[in-house]
Amino acid sequence: MIHRGEFVVGTNGRGTREITDEVARIVAKSRTSIGVATVWCHHTSASLIICENADSAVRRDLEAFFARLVPDGDRLFTHTAEGDDDMPAHVRTVLTQTSIAIPIHESRLELGTWQGLYLWEHRTSPHRRRVSVTIVGE
Amino acid sequence: MIHRGEFVVGTNGRGTREITDEVARIVAKSRTSIGVATVWCHHTSASLIICENADSAVRRDLEAFFARLVPDGDRLFTHTAEGDDDMPAHVRTVLTQTSIAIPIHESRLELGTWQGLYLWEHRTSPHRRRVSVTIVGE
Amino acid sequence: MIHRGEFVVGTNGRGTREITDEVARIVAKSRTSIGVATVWCHHTSASLIICENADSAVRRDLEAFFARLVPDGDRLFTHTAEGDDDMPAHVRTVLTQTSIAIPIHESRLELGTWQGLYLWEHRTSPHRRRVSVTIVGE
Repeated sequence: MIHRGEFVVGTNGRGTREITDEVARIVAKSRTSIGVATVWCHHTSASLIICENADSAVRRDLEAFFARLVPDGDRLFTHTAEGDDDMPAHVRTVLTQTSIAIPIHESRLELGTWQGLYLWEHRTSPHRRRVSVTIVGE
Repeated sequence: MIHRGEFVVGTNGRGTREITDEVARIVAKSRTSIGVATVWCHHTSASLIICENADSAVRRDLEAFFARLVPDGDRLFTHTAEGDDDMPAHVRTVLTQTSIAIPIHESRLELGTWQGLYLWEHRTSPHRRRVSVTIVGE
Repeated sequence: MIHRGEFVVGTNGRGTREITDEVARIVAKSRTSIGVATVWCHHTSASLIICENADSAVRRDLEAFFARLVPDGDRLFTHTAEGDDDMPAHVRTVLTQTSIAIPIHESRLELGTWQGLYLWEHRTSPHRRRVSVTIVGE
């Protein structure tokens, strides 16, 4: 059996936003007891990560690390039509995930105790980001 | 239902090559209306990415960024038997994807407007790269 | 048909540990001839990679590269409660994989000749790491 759902996240510009609950709701509605939920982000300047969900300092430090690793306005970049954060957003997306396949077990997303699923907006301005969830299971 | 296809990409050395159409053709042939296509690259010095497909400067900038991040001939590396680009190719593969699970919806790969699937050759010399596509759906 | 298995890896602190055989054993037991095995690491400071499996220098160089890229004790990091390697472990996890979907073909994991699946412990002290494998196939 295949089930599918989708949702839109309105972001406030660069930063992470937890979407574990949105995906869990689609899994619950599908009444799948075992299988895999493939989460897909429909963009090339926002991405998905699994990250520690207890201390928000982890995501702040992650943001600081990536801002240093892929600096906005780096003179290396020629694709700058949409601004200083345009090309860094594409690089950050490539360094993280567009697709994450999460197992479903005993009717629930089988996440570890400290694992949360996050949408990471890499542009500095707010965007609407589409995420779909495709469930294969029984 | 499970379907499977594969193809070989002949690369011209380092650089990205779009393979969206090759995968879409296997999906179409499978007559799957909804499900997931798992794309797999059978190598450790070439990888897969989802990237912006409109402006080729994005992939050129991406190439420049990775060339700076993981420099060929870096003295840090001891695994140099096959040349200066050998170990950087393995690192670049680990930093990107060997497997990407792409949703299928309404009989098509459910890619966002600007998303393309690329094989990224990380070696400087031409290679033949094998890619397989395993489709689970109905 | 969906099958599922899991195992625990006791690590000796930072480093890679091949888990191809553990996953292959679960695939064999499931008697799946074609499909996809989704491997999931239940942690945010250990991760999964596909890497060259012939010369162990590749993983040593990879370790050296990541140690330089994400230095322990970097003053950028504020989340340091568990030590200098705490936040680097989260960053290294985000830069690699928590989930890898591996195709199964002719009753075997369809890995390339030089591909091995590794659990990468990012903490400097030993940990017990849980890995699950969810198989969708026929």
